[in-house]
Amino acid sequence: MKDMTSLDNLEVGFDVPALPGMDAADVQTPCLVLDLDALERNIKKMGDYARAHGMRHRVHGKMHKSVDVAKLQEKLGGACGVCCQKVSEAEVFARGGIKDVLVSNQVRDPAKIDRLARMPKLGARTICCVDDVDNVADLSAAAQKHGTQIECLVEIDCGAGRCGVTTTPAVVEIAKAIDAAPGLKFAGIQAYQGAMQHMDNYEDRKAKVDIAIAMVRDAVEGLRAQGLECDIVGGGGTGSYYFESASGVYNELQCGSYAFMDADYGRILDKDGNRIDKGEWENALFLLTQVMSHAKPEKAIVDAGLKAQSVDSGLPVIYGRDDVEYVKCSDEHGVVADPEGKLKVGDKLKLVPGHCDPTCNVHDWYVGLRGDKVEAVWPVSARGKAY
Amino acid sequence: MKDMTSLDNLEVGFDVPALPGMDAADVQTPCLVLDLDALERNIKKMGDYARAHGMRHRVHGKMHKSVDVAKLQEKLGGACGVCCQKVSEAEVFARGGIKDVLVSNQVRDPAKIDRLARMPKLGARTICCVDDVDNVADLSAAAQKHGTQIECLVEIDCGAGRCGVTTTPAVVEIAKAIDAAPGLKFAGIQAYQGAMQHMDNYEDRKAKVDIAIAMVRDAVEGLRAQGLECDIVGGGGTGSYYFESASGVYNELQCGSYAFMDADYGRILDKDGNRIDKGEWENALFLLTQVMSHAKPEKAIVDAGLKAQSVDSGLPVIYGRDDVEYVKCSDEHGVVADPEGKLKVGDKLKLVPGHCDPTCNVHDWYVGLRGDKVEAVWPVSARGKAY
Repeated sequence: MKDMTSLDNLEVGFDVPALPGMDAADVQTPCLVLDLDALERNIKKMGDYARAHGMRHRVHGKMHKSVDVAKLQEKLGGACGVCCQKVSEAEVFARGGIKDVLVSNQVRDPAKIDRLARMPKLGARTICCVDDVDNVADLSAAAQKHGTQIECLVEIDCGAGRCGVTTTPAVVEIAKAIDAAPGLKFAGIQAYQGAMQHMDNYEDRKAKVDIAIAMVRDAVEGLRAQGLECDIVGGGGTGSYYFESASGVYNELQCGSYAFMDADYGRILDKDGNRIDKGEWENALFLLTQVMSHAKPEKAIVDAGLKAQSVDSGLPVIYGRDDVEYVKCSDEHGVVADPEGKLKVGDKLKLVPGHCDPTCNVHDWYVGLRGDKVEAVWPVSARGKAY
Repeated sequence: MKDMTSLDNLEVGFDVPALPGMDAADVQTPCLVLDLDALERNIKKMGDYARAHGMRHRVHGKMHKSVDVAKLQEKLGGACGVCCQKVSEAEVFARGGIKDVLVSNQVRDPAKIDRLARMPKLGARTICCVDDVDNVADLSAAAQKHGTQIECLVEIDCGAGRCGVTTTPAVVEIAKAIDAAPGLKFAGIQAYQGAMQHMDNYEDRKAKVDIAIAMVRDAVEGLRAQGLECDIVGGGGTGSYYFESASGVYNELQCGSYAFMDADYGRILDKDGNRIDKGEWENALFLLTQVMSHAKPEKAIVDAGLKAQSVDSGLPVIYGRDDVEYVKCSDEHGVVADPEGKLKVGDKLKLVPGHCDPTCNVHDWYVGLRGDKVEAVWPVSARGKAY
């Protein structure tokens, strides 16, 4: 075992789970590990798909919150930029060198609007969403104050039931207000159908996206009738990108989870009825955990509980094993059913998290593995950036 | 509004949700706020209870992960020290000046054992749990290597179904091994019944703790017959501390959630059938959130979703309001049913989190409020310390 004590964690209070060059077997648990080969294949595959279908791909940075992963998506996947959900997150990507950043969300708080308006000074094209005409004057005033430009998309609620307006007249009203506001630029439409991405059945998902596409097409035509063209018509996720790509009206995808995969997404089915984690995408993200107690013969206790993952979309799945099962999760522990007594203290297991986004948000580091070696240790740069 | 831009968050990348002296109305959302008056009353009340019943109180630091809160518990509640669940967490408390730290968990990984054995050099009494005789030699070797002493409790699984042995002979075997091992000191028993703390009914909880108490009494007597006295017989939580206090065999409590309260704990009933958050303990922890979209009349969208809280034990409850309800949680958003249209964009709501421990673990800061003013901004010192 490599001597982790050389890091002098104790005195400096700085915890890293691994160092580049270390054997994978010596990585500290619990921590997030990335299979870099699988990650790169996923990124390249989605990039190739977007390019072949004439779509830009603005990768969703809120999933991984990592400047390093975003740059890999630009390099290998031809990503045009990043979208994310919070201003503080967007700042991290802009500071990290991403030149085109969309906050795919409303920005209403005065302090947040001020921060957003300063973001172009970091060298990044800055875009946000608007679903209320009352927001326009505040964004405009902040942009003028800082001498910058904020581009704005009108957000349509095309089925997710969260932010966004639901009619073409409402879209047109907001777009005209943006277009007339100093410091702002009307840039198009945001229309992400978040509620159907995890429906198992392909045809069920298609039916929901067809409704969204019809709403978006109507809005684009309504805007055009007023002389307003959309530079961006954005949406699409890992469970739907082929529908938006074939729509003839969307021009930007915003996929996130395809790069890492997780247990909940992995269960949805492609058009041939196959799970998408069995061919379409590879599991690249794992929560590495270790058996730290086996005092009862039929159950092993591992060191990854609720503070190492989010279980909102179900428990994690143990990768590559069908003889043991993660059956219970408490704050600091996982209970693994081990009916045949296969596990012993110190054994490591790779968990596929139930839901990647909030799981990544509890960790400070990604450990990138190439085969049996640690190649990279990347910070979860925007972890906890919730403002 | 105080000018948050003076922090220059944008350039330095350092996000704090508030500054001391600021009006509570200007705190950035989403963030954790503490009602300091309520917190201090909770801490003092539990301290007084423990003292009146002749119990030491080793407060559970894994709940709040905050050196500042732990020190308040020492000062106002007479806490004898801290327990926590991970070595990296324990280091944070020891570095922060807590002089008596128990890792109420097994430590098996070689790197973690080495870190644990160095911890006494920070000036803290260092204690951990053992449930496997095979662990004793490793702990002993590390303590000898560093010239330190690790005190060890034998962990009994008295119903939680996680770590711990289940028979008195197993307890005695491990205790004798500890007692004989250079660098180690046998210090007693760890017996926390974690599985019944959240049972609603008082008598149901009592029945479970009675079983635990009988196991612990048998173990203490078995150890005494071998000449081994227990300095610490520890356990007890917010749902059970009165049972352990009356047992005549436990001498240390390990309560955590009482200080902050949460929605899931708040629902359990005291011996008179009243919810414990209606008299016994006060809600001192809130997740402050803000309406950031209200494009549909019947629902408000707030800025606290899965990345601002853990929903493993249910959705948050909106404090002090029965006209609106938090009904859905996605990564970045909460959907608040607002049937009467009472809310508008910018309105702030105080959420009582479903489960305090993993919710605190996603945040970097506590904002301590005294009335309408920010009095303190404390780091969540051991956030993410999962190793």
